[in-house]
Amino acid sequence: MAMNAVARLDAEPPAHPIAHIVEAGLSAVEARMQDACKSDVSILNDASHHILSAGGKRVRPRLVLLSYLACGGAAVDSVISLAAALELVHTASVVHDDINDHGVVRRGKPSVNAIWGRTFALLTGDFLFTKVYELMAPHHDMNVILAEATVALVEGETLQAQAVKEQRFTRQVYMDIIARKTASLFSAGGLMGARAANANDRVAEALGRYGFNIGLAFQIVDDILDLTADEAQLGKTAGLDLKQGRGIGSINSGAAPDPVTLIKAKALNSNSVAEGKLQAKMLIDSAIGELDVLSDSPAKDELVALARYIVERDH
Amino acid sequence: MAMNAVARLDAEPPAHPIAHIVEAGLSAVEARMQDACKSDVSILNDASHHILSAGGKRVRPRLVLLSYLACGGAAVDSVISLAAALELVHTASVVHDDINDHGVVRRGKPSVNAIWGRTFALLTGDFLFTKVYELMAPHHDMNVILAEATVALVEGETLQAQAVKEQRFTRQVYMDIIARKTASLFSAGGLMGARAANANDRVAEALGRYGFNIGLAFQIVDDILDLTADEAQLGKTAGLDLKQGRGIGSINSGAAPDPVTLIKAKALNSNSVAEGKLQAKMLIDSAIGELDVLSDSPAKDELVALARYIVERDH
Repeated sequence: MAMNAVARLDAEPPAHPIAHIVEAGLSAVEARMQDACKSDVSILNDASHHILSAGGKRVRPRLVLLSYLACGGAAVDSVISLAAALELVHTASVVHDDINDHGVVRRGKPSVNAIWGRTFALLTGDFLFTKVYELMAPHHDMNVILAEATVALVEGETLQAQAVKEQRFTRQVYMDIIARKTASLFSAGGLMGARAANANDRVAEALGRYGFNIGLAFQIVDDILDLTADEAQLGKTAGLDLKQGRGIGSINSGAAPDPVTLIKAKALNSNSVAEGKLQAKMLIDSAIGELDVLSDSPAKDELVALARYIVERDH
Repeated sequence: MAMNAVARLDAEPPAHPIAHIVEAGLSAVEARMQDACKSDVSILNDASHHILSAGGKRVRPRLVLLSYLACGGAAVDSVISLAAALELVHTASVVHDDINDHGVVRRGKPSVNAIWGRTFALLTGDFLFTKVYELMAPHHDMNVILAEATVALVEGETLQAQAVKEQRFTRQVYMDIIARKTASLFSAGGLMGARAANANDRVAEALGRYGFNIGLAFQIVDDILDLTADEAQLGKTAGLDLKQGRGIGSINSGAAPDPVTLIKAKALNSNSVAEGKLQAKMLIDSAIGELDVLSDSPAKDELVALARYIVERDH
């Protein structure tokens, strides 16, 4: 399988045992996801393994693992399903997103929609959502957290589609959308990792806020990259967010159905990108500040590094 | 809210306390579903309440309530969420079904797809699926049963879309499809009701098989009605299953994209309908036979009546 983006961050042999533990955990998460999506219905099996094997940054499962370890968790096996389920929620949402947005490239590969068509892409997304439910069914205590975050994600996607349709993309609407569609899931990741390590409420809530803030920053950076990066860097149809009249560029440019290049030029000439970058950096500082509740540890250092990576990445 | 089909069966004032208990339980299920689907995202709130208020036969929650009561359960409140979640899985699937099949009428009202369009119908279905997960999250012990049935439903829908596309609609393929897309959920209903009443394995599995068999019969009868009933009777776009080259008529007629009337005539001239009716009756007899594990009770009598209603209904 292709190296994912975060793994490439430390292309050097891992210097610390923590890096070994996290990489081993992420491999176990991949295996758990692959295993969860097996089906004798070949289209569902093939389409879900297609999107899984395309990789992705795997920021969400990394967040679960690191939150767990930084809160003193010592049995990484116990959070593999949580991390896998969290990434599968995200995966389900991108499969459905590519239907609604006519996205043809995802993670450097043709989208499920592009290969299998709309009907099967819809059913593959449903399959992934229901597999989250199945995977989590035996893990009683985390279901409330993940279910609420999953509902929020769908609500955020809906607010986004509504804002595009109604051409009503104010900064407040934008922040509400990304809080629900992205930050909620990141918040759940931090919270679940901490709870699984039996962290107290104060620590668990701090990890939830850490996740929430890096989630907001992640989406803002994603939207900026959609404006400034090329398709090869992004591994998905570039300018799609703009073509759909959403994303950070839409705040100042409005959601008019201009050609992508025109909107892009307009957004780049405005202050959107500079403002977005500044805001993302402030959110990351705030997230790192939440980590003060934790004792120093290599896992805590990795959470700081993860937050920094989110604003420094170029794809 | 409109009376639903099963309720109309006993339009006379309920003669037994059991009927009162079941009707009160079904009202509680309606309220639980309405409550679960509240959202400050107006489109999701409105679209999900639109499809819920259109009613439906509510056979699945009735099955949960009766299985629970017939196994000696005495605290109906404890199964309201289970019954509501089961009906919401079905509701989510019909919202997505109407996207893939271009269905414009559902339960006598315009479909979500017809009113809000494809993008929001997709998100409304996702919302309902994730609300099932959220509703069930605190109910630990039944999640494995419902999650597996929900996965099976999506697999069945996928096999159906594939069979239509590949024009490969043998009797065996048809039975596999309806076992997964319909009977699995009915089986889960019987099983969950029995387990909630602390029935032993022998009894719970018998109720699961009862549900499975009436589920198969229910789908066969549905497909026959799609061939023979008119739109006003059905409350949904009639002949849709045929137009899509699926359903029981497709078994002998093949899945060729003939005009609906042509396929309908062909199916009605073949033995499909008569064979289907016979098979549904045999399945109902078999389902009723499974109830031998239960002591006699008014709830058991209602399970027998529910099974008979399934083959005798005309819409």
